[in-house]
Amino acid sequence: MSILVVGSVALDTIKTPSGGCREVLGGSATFFSVSARFFEPYVNLVAVVGKDFPQRYINLLKKKGIGLDGLEIKKGKTFRWEGEYGWDFSNPRTIATHLNVFADFDPVIPQEYKDAKYIFLANIDPCLQNKVLSLVKNPRLVACDTMNYWIENKRKDLMKLLKKIDIFFLNESEARELTGKSSVVRAAREVFKMGPKKIIIKKGEHGALLFSGNSIFSTPAYLMESIFDPTGAGDTFAGGVMGYLAAQKSVNDANLRKAIVRGTIMATFAVEDFSLRRLSTVRPSDIARRLKNFRKRTRF
Amino acid sequence: MSILVVGSVALDTIKTPSGGCREVLGGSATFFSVSARFFEPYVNLVAVVGKDFPQRYINLLKKKGIGLDGLEIKKGKTFRWEGEYGWDFSNPRTIATHLNVFADFDPVIPQEYKDAKYIFLANIDPCLQNKVLSLVKNPRLVACDTMNYWIENKRKDLMKLLKKIDIFFLNESEARELTGKSSVVRAAREVFKMGPKKIIIKKGEHGALLFSGNSIFSTPAYLMESIFDPTGAGDTFAGGVMGYLAAQKSVNDANLRKAIVRGTIMATFAVEDFSLRRLSTVRPSDIARRLKNFRKRTRF
Repeated sequence: MSILVVGSVALDTIKTPSGGCREVLGGSATFFSVSARFFEPYVNLVAVVGKDFPQRYINLLKKKGIGLDGLEIKKGKTFRWEGEYGWDFSNPRTIATHLNVFADFDPVIPQEYKDAKYIFLANIDPCLQNKVLSLVKNPRLVACDTMNYWIENKRKDLMKLLKKIDIFFLNESEARELTGKSSVVRAAREVFKMGPKKIIIKKGEHGALLFSGNSIFSTPAYLMESIFDPTGAGDTFAGGVMGYLAAQKSVNDANLRKAIVRGTIMATFAVEDFSLRRLSTVRPSDIARRLKNFRKRTRF
Repeated sequence: MSILVVGSVALDTIKTPSGGCREVLGGSATFFSVSARFFEPYVNLVAVVGKDFPQRYINLLKKKGIGLDGLEIKKGKTFRWEGEYGWDFSNPRTIATHLNVFADFDPVIPQEYKDAKYIFLANIDPCLQNKVLSLVKNPRLVACDTMNYWIENKRKDLMKLLKKIDIFFLNESEARELTGKSSVVRAAREVFKMGPKKIIIKKGEHGALLFSGNSIFSTPAYLMESIFDPTGAGDTFAGGVMGYLAAQKSVNDANLRKAIVRGTIMATFAVEDFSLRRLSTVRPSDIARRLKNFRKRTRF
């Protein structure tokens, strides 16, 4: 069933200990949609880019089968982010953020996308996330991401949003900041009170946690020999989760666990090269092979 | 089959965000042996304490069924460690280390312990670890732990030791320091060249990794609502691993994975209270319950 993702499409300039790249395709909606598209044929994107956005990137997204009717091309420049990672690839140092056309992003949902059953509200202003939700008709499942900035500066809008969220994707530091609890178990209990039905804690190279009622699912990440660039890994993970779920008959905990494992595998392709270089060339057999290996690596 | 552990028995003074304790029972051999004893009836300890070592702690170890013929009580004071943990319970800040009688520790292995089939050389000077190995007769499996200090200051003795090691327990920072590789996969490959047949990377609250030939086993930790004091968690983990292995007919990868899961569960009891307060009161049904829950939490 169709997925709608609303988020950013950006040009990233990144330095890592392994190298660097300039103004390459990035953005939360980009990584999410390409990842989700491996599981679900109908993935539609709503985002904004400037007139300077390279046609080759539009061609790439088209070729990957992403619905682009909601990609607004606006007068001005595309959102740019510049960051640098240290050897441990944890939190990048932001060198520059140029929001450009993204500063006034006001998502317009094409009529035919309003019937989407699976909605992913990527990390944008919670006011806009709320607005998107008011525009879609009858979603079966709504998921969102956020970041510390919104927790600090748009808490009220975020709280309004969370009441309507089925799956909340966040990382440990966001969970702590949102709840003031250092224990992730206690933080999850507080987050449940805010509305979300399921909570997925992204732990990067340390895996992921799912909180669902009183049940916990805990998975390691898929251990990689080397990480090239972790940018987009979280959105790629969420894309795998949502893509897999949208392709199933029902959303239950068993499927959610399987979905998280797919997300975990998809994220490994995001970190193997800059931008979508590896992710965009993945074949279903690559996913199947890594999934099989992951099962072997976690069995006891 | 009988286990011999050589390491420290200490008195710990610890501060954590949850509270503090003074001069409580600690030490690598202590946590290891009490944990291993849940799986294997013959666990013998070789260590040294001072004349000031409280009789009640000796009684506790006796009551837990630990062989104490190798616990030397020497003129002088017992090894004391004082440390403080921050809210995230990662690396503690050492406030004071008083080696006392432990400074001249020269392990003497009682004759009846020399036949031990499973040897755990806890984190002590690699010279002493080598010496212990020269004294035991025909072990089936030798495991060791170490720390950054020995990697930096006794590298040659450590390298000599590693040639004879079946299972090497270490954490990520030790693996990096030992090999100069930031990727844990690459670090493991280098460590294999040094001799160990199996490598277990302890990741604390993020679980553990087993490297065995080309195969990798990856497990999350058992998520705890709160951590009280992580001191001894690594040795308790190793105790669970070795105890479970010693109680099996053979050491193969399937058993090693199961052993790592037992170690993971045992470590949760170590962190639930200061010292061995919780660990020493654990019943087999507590372990079984948590193990069952762990299986539920990791299944997909």
